[in-house]
Amino acid sequence: MPAFDFKIEKQNEECLARLGEIKTRHGKIKTPVFLPVATNASVKALTSEDMKSLNAEILMANTYHLFLRPGLEVIEAFRGLHKFMNWQKPIMTDSGGFQAFSLGFGIEHGVGKISNIFPDEAVGGPKPKGEKQAFVSDKGITFYSPYDGKKIFLTPELSIKIQQTLNSDIMLVLDECTSPLNDYDYTKQSLSRTHKWAEQCLKAKESDQALFGIVQGGAYKDLREESSRFISSLPFDGIAIGGSLGKSKRDMHNILEWTIPLLPEEKPRHLLGIGAVEDFFNSIERGIDMFDCVSPTRLARAGFLFIHPSDGGTMKNKFRIDIGKSGYKKDDSPISESCECYTCKNYSKAYLRHLYMAKELSYHRLASIHNVHFFLSLIEEIRKAIKEDSFFELKAKWLNF
Amino acid sequence: MPAFDFKIEKQNEECLARLGEIKTRHGKIKTPVFLPVATNASVKALTSEDMKSLNAEILMANTYHLFLRPGLEVIEAFRGLHKFMNWQKPIMTDSGGFQAFSLGFGIEHGVGKISNIFPDEAVGGPKPKGEKQAFVSDKGITFYSPYDGKKIFLTPELSIKIQQTLNSDIMLVLDECTSPLNDYDYTKQSLSRTHKWAEQCLKAKESDQALFGIVQGGAYKDLREESSRFISSLPFDGIAIGGSLGKSKRDMHNILEWTIPLLPEEKPRHLLGIGAVEDFFNSIERGIDMFDCVSPTRLARAGFLFIHPSDGGTMKNKFRIDIGKSGYKKDDSPISESCECYTCKNYSKAYLRHLYMAKELSYHRLASIHNVHFFLSLIEEIRKAIKEDSFFELKAKWLNF
Repeated sequence: MPAFDFKIEKQNEECLARLGEIKTRHGKIKTPVFLPVATNASVKALTSEDMKSLNAEILMANTYHLFLRPGLEVIEAFRGLHKFMNWQKPIMTDSGGFQAFSLGFGIEHGVGKISNIFPDEAVGGPKPKGEKQAFVSDKGITFYSPYDGKKIFLTPELSIKIQQTLNSDIMLVLDECTSPLNDYDYTKQSLSRTHKWAEQCLKAKESDQALFGIVQGGAYKDLREESSRFISSLPFDGIAIGGSLGKSKRDMHNILEWTIPLLPEEKPRHLLGIGAVEDFFNSIERGIDMFDCVSPTRLARAGFLFIHPSDGGTMKNKFRIDIGKSGYKKDDSPISESCECYTCKNYSKAYLRHLYMAKELSYHRLASIHNVHFFLSLIEEIRKAIKEDSFFELKAKWLNF
Repeated sequence: MPAFDFKIEKQNEECLARLGEIKTRHGKIKTPVFLPVATNASVKALTSEDMKSLNAEILMANTYHLFLRPGLEVIEAFRGLHKFMNWQKPIMTDSGGFQAFSLGFGIEHGVGKISNIFPDEAVGGPKPKGEKQAFVSDKGITFYSPYDGKKIFLTPELSIKIQQTLNSDIMLVLDECTSPLNDYDYTKQSLSRTHKWAEQCLKAKESDQALFGIVQGGAYKDLREESSRFISSLPFDGIAIGGSLGKSKRDMHNILEWTIPLLPEEKPRHLLGIGAVEDFFNSIERGIDMFDCVSPTRLARAGFLFIHPSDGGTMKNKFRIDIGKSGYKKDDSPISESCECYTCKNYSKAYLRHLYMAKELSYHRLASIHNVHFFLSLIEEIRKAIKEDSFFELKAKWLNF
């Protein structure tokens, strides 16, 4: 039996949406799937037990952060992340490539994965600019540890070695995540580096963990096509689409439309770092099987709580309420009347608002539980709709087309 | 049936320790009992559901803080704290008197309830000094809101009115909590004010909530005796011992020895704001039935996790470990091998240390669960020992006499 397998259970006839099942060494995952992000081996404000209660099927953990802290010798003592964080279901690990961007160009220019030149894409205003902490060369990425200033040189081989120690079920190749502000020439040059690293990662792998390649190429059609073909030609277990996804959601859709038809049908496709209601519908429709994003927990901490269309959620309000608003001061109803989560079953908006205003730590957990539950339930609803051939009805219900 | 009742179930023959049961409108409480503190209607980092899982019997909430935020109109909309915070077991509320000290003299002179002139009594180093935010006069306490600078004049009548809106099961009279640094003359003058306020509170009470008087008098024997007699002469449902408890634990024991023999046997006795392993034994031995303290959650957040003698807990190490210590880096054992709490059942010291070092929010909950469980279990163990006539054996086992 292979340590990793993917089978397509149903293909939608009108679009690229599909149902599938991924088999890993730690159990099966139904796709499309959303991976909550446990950057430091903990989904922020939640425990592994919370994630089990929320029926999360797989988590994403962070190679770069865990390499710095707690460090490999600690993870080695536990023979991997699963035992360390008491999580027995599948884990995917990123490669550290995204941090080359977020701690490099991203921090220097104050931009995110989708450029926040467009104010409506920004969460909580523009990112603060700061001093670059990551530098990319053909050989790898040089980081300076924020804890002790120590220099770390992350090569494709080291990224695989770390991920083997983390013993994740699905690893990602080291790539350079370019910025929406990078020009064609830089992006092209970066792409050839990323492709070389992809081959090095494959060569370096010594375990039976799955390894996904990453398609890069910024918002440039020919580069995305070139990358799709190249990454598809290599024996990866799945393919991720990463990097700058353009300057707007429309750019992102273009990138998916250029890329996905060139990818092998039989491999799962992961859209890295993306997660918003409309992104799920628009990306699954275009053939994406997997998502990961910090947004449910990050937005929860910032006071934004998700609501279903039946509770008034719309594209306009981004399917969320701002719990800090004074209108909720005496509101004794839950965030959502129909929601089955622990938070909605037990606490009112007024109480959550109070905890939020009083900066109580318990707020973060209750808000994060609700938002993660919302994301996981939405994906489940989408899976059900694909199964029942009602994907477009569900999309229309949510996005009001 | 009265809304409040206390019956003594067993009196230890060799000391003042006793087993009892308090009946409230929200259920019964076995004494001795420890009240976790939910200052802002949330035990820090924990939810009401967590407190139920921990078998907490009663919580202490804070009149002053809840009056400022969320404010009375919010609590009124929920007809009290129970529904607001989704906690159906008993609640006790303090009166705001302690904040007259902590935000007044305490903040000005950088001292706590037990003077931290003695370094071994201090938690996390000396308190920072700051600008006084509370001023006491014969009529009441003037506070300046930290949120909007608004002046609040807390009288005995207003404190009772607020506590009636909070609809707690047990209220406390407004008192002036003096400082260990106050001299005899100030403490005497303050005491006559506190006694007048106690009468005003009794007169102001219009509900069937229980009301406890508070014995003050600093570390001065004659004042403590005078206060014990005066408060005992009034028709309170129970009696709390508050205020400055001297400059050392020995001073605190003296105060208990002066006070308790003068209090009516048939009323429960609450030692305000105290909670450490040896305090439980020494105070229960001297006749205390009830304790409240922020220490389990506050110490948890600061990295201190409690351990039983069977795990190496001693007076010397204060029955706690510092989870930040590098020795725990790869330690795959739980905080305590014998502990039955959720944290110890699921997570290792290495993982907790990692979460603590990485400043992960989930650390606070896991650490607080363990420490609150430790306190509640210890009190339960003491109750069992009193029942089985082995109180002194248990005390010797813990304090190594």
